Amino acid sequence: MEFRKIIEEKSATAWEIYIPNLSIDCVVFGFHDTTLKVLVTKIKDQNLWALPGGYVLKTENLRDGASRILYDRTGAKDIYLQQFRVFGDLNRSEDFFEGYPDTLWNKQRFISVGFYALVDFSQVNLVVDEISDACEWKSIDELSDFMMDHKSIFDKALLTLRKQLNHKPIGYSLLPEKFTMPELQKLYEIILGKKLNRGNFYRKMLRYDILEKLDEIRKGGAHKAPDLYKFDVKKYQVALKNGLNEGW
Amino acid sequence: MEFRKIIEEKSATAWEIYIPNLSIDCVVFGFHDTTLKVLVTKIKDQNLWALPGGYVLKTENLRDGASRILYDRTGAKDIYLQQFRVFGDLNRSEDFFEGYPDTLWNKQRFISVGFYALVDFSQVNLVVDEISDACEWKSIDELSDFMMDHKSIFDKALLTLRKQLNHKPIGYSLLPEKFTMPELQKLYEIILGKKLNRGNFYRKMLRYDILEKLDEIRKGGAHKAPDLYKFDVKKYQVALKNGLNEGW
Repeated sequence: MEFRKIIEEKSATAWEIYIPNLSIDCVVFGFHDTTLKVLVTKIKDQNLWALPGGYVLKTENLRDGASRILYDRTGAKDIYLQQFRVFGDLNRSEDFFEGYPDTLWNKQRFISVGFYALVDFSQVNLVVDEISDACEWKSIDELSDFMMDHKSIFDKALLTLRKQLNHKPIGYSLLPEKFTMPELQKLYEIILGKKLNRGNFYRKMLRYDILEKLDEIRKGGAHKAPDLYKFDVKKYQVALKNGLNEGW
Repeated sequence: MEFRKIIEEKSATAWEIYIPNLSIDCVVFGFHDTTLKVLVTKIKDQNLWALPGGYVLKTENLRDGASRILYDRTGAKDIYLQQFRVFGDLNRSEDFFEGYPDTLWNKQRFISVGFYALVDFSQVNLVVDEISDACEWKSIDELSDFMMDHKSIFDKALLTLRKQLNHKPIGYSLLPEKFTMPELQKLYEIILGKKLNRGNFYRKMLRYDILEKLDEIRKGGAHKAPDLYKFDVKKYQVALKNGLNEGW
């Protein structure tokens, strides 16, 4: 069934079961092939992409709505989602459904609560739901043709991540269990949007004291294989809770 | 007119002009007499207090709604309000109006967007609006009998402030232009909920390099008058933007 028909058919039920004027949009980050990626859906019949989003049932808590929406739209589950911002400007969503009947559920003004998550890329089994043509991981450098203000929502989530780097550890959910220092550095560089000095990065990471150097090395390659590290989970959790820097 | 009558009379108009199921609650901090205070209103005819809050017009941006609501409820204006969290659990607000007609505007489930601000105590001219008996600054140690989940909203705002202390400067809006190091330390101690070592505080503050020591001293008192400081506004703004610690 085409997009317009699906949307119109679901409208009556939507008015009954969902909280009006409220939506949730999820920015789910994954890290793969030294590339930071975000989970997006392609809108059925159109050359437009969207963050996985949806509406909140009148009978559910907001946070449960976020989890359910992410699962319904993408198949991703048991993901730790965190609110990062509410997007409440006029005309952020209404114009997209111009030309549809005025009584259409989707034509309302929607104030959207943005949630983000950092996930292990390999643990997510994606599905394509009925209003999408595709559900995939896209590199953050290859994002285009987003509907509504979803690009702004994404930008804000990335900024939230970037600000956190200064005082919280990152990488535990995004990287594989064992990784090299260059891989960790690459993750930081992508989030920050700039190159870092290798020596400085190494020294700062050691000062954070959240890594364990492993006795193994990654095989293969002509050069000396780089050391492998993993996060010391306990120390990582403490740093996540209390911050990395000498707090108060 | 009593509270119940006012609420019931305003209900019909409310359904017309406001976005349903959405509210805003403001946590406005001030610092006075070495006490951290929060702006609260006393609900008319009842022994209950509330954070200044309200509803969003269908025709306004969310952030403009927050400013307008704060002004309407308290008279405070030109306040820099920041979102800090959305409160979206079921049954956070509905029970308060148990016993009222089901069609009453206020009886809906409200998902509330929390905004907070740090203000110069002396710059706020308070007014008492029609659904309140009082509008005043209460010490954060003397908060009781809050309606709904307003105590939780306050707690979360204070926690947000506390977390920020580790990496952002605080005090510019809260303290008078000139202050002593003990006064600044007292502000930190109140937000953190614990005493700090005077020497450590002094050294850490100097390391942040956001203060200017003034040539004047505060007069009066038998002891040696403590040095007066002010914030170097430019450095403070930079630290606010980029964080206090050596970032990336």
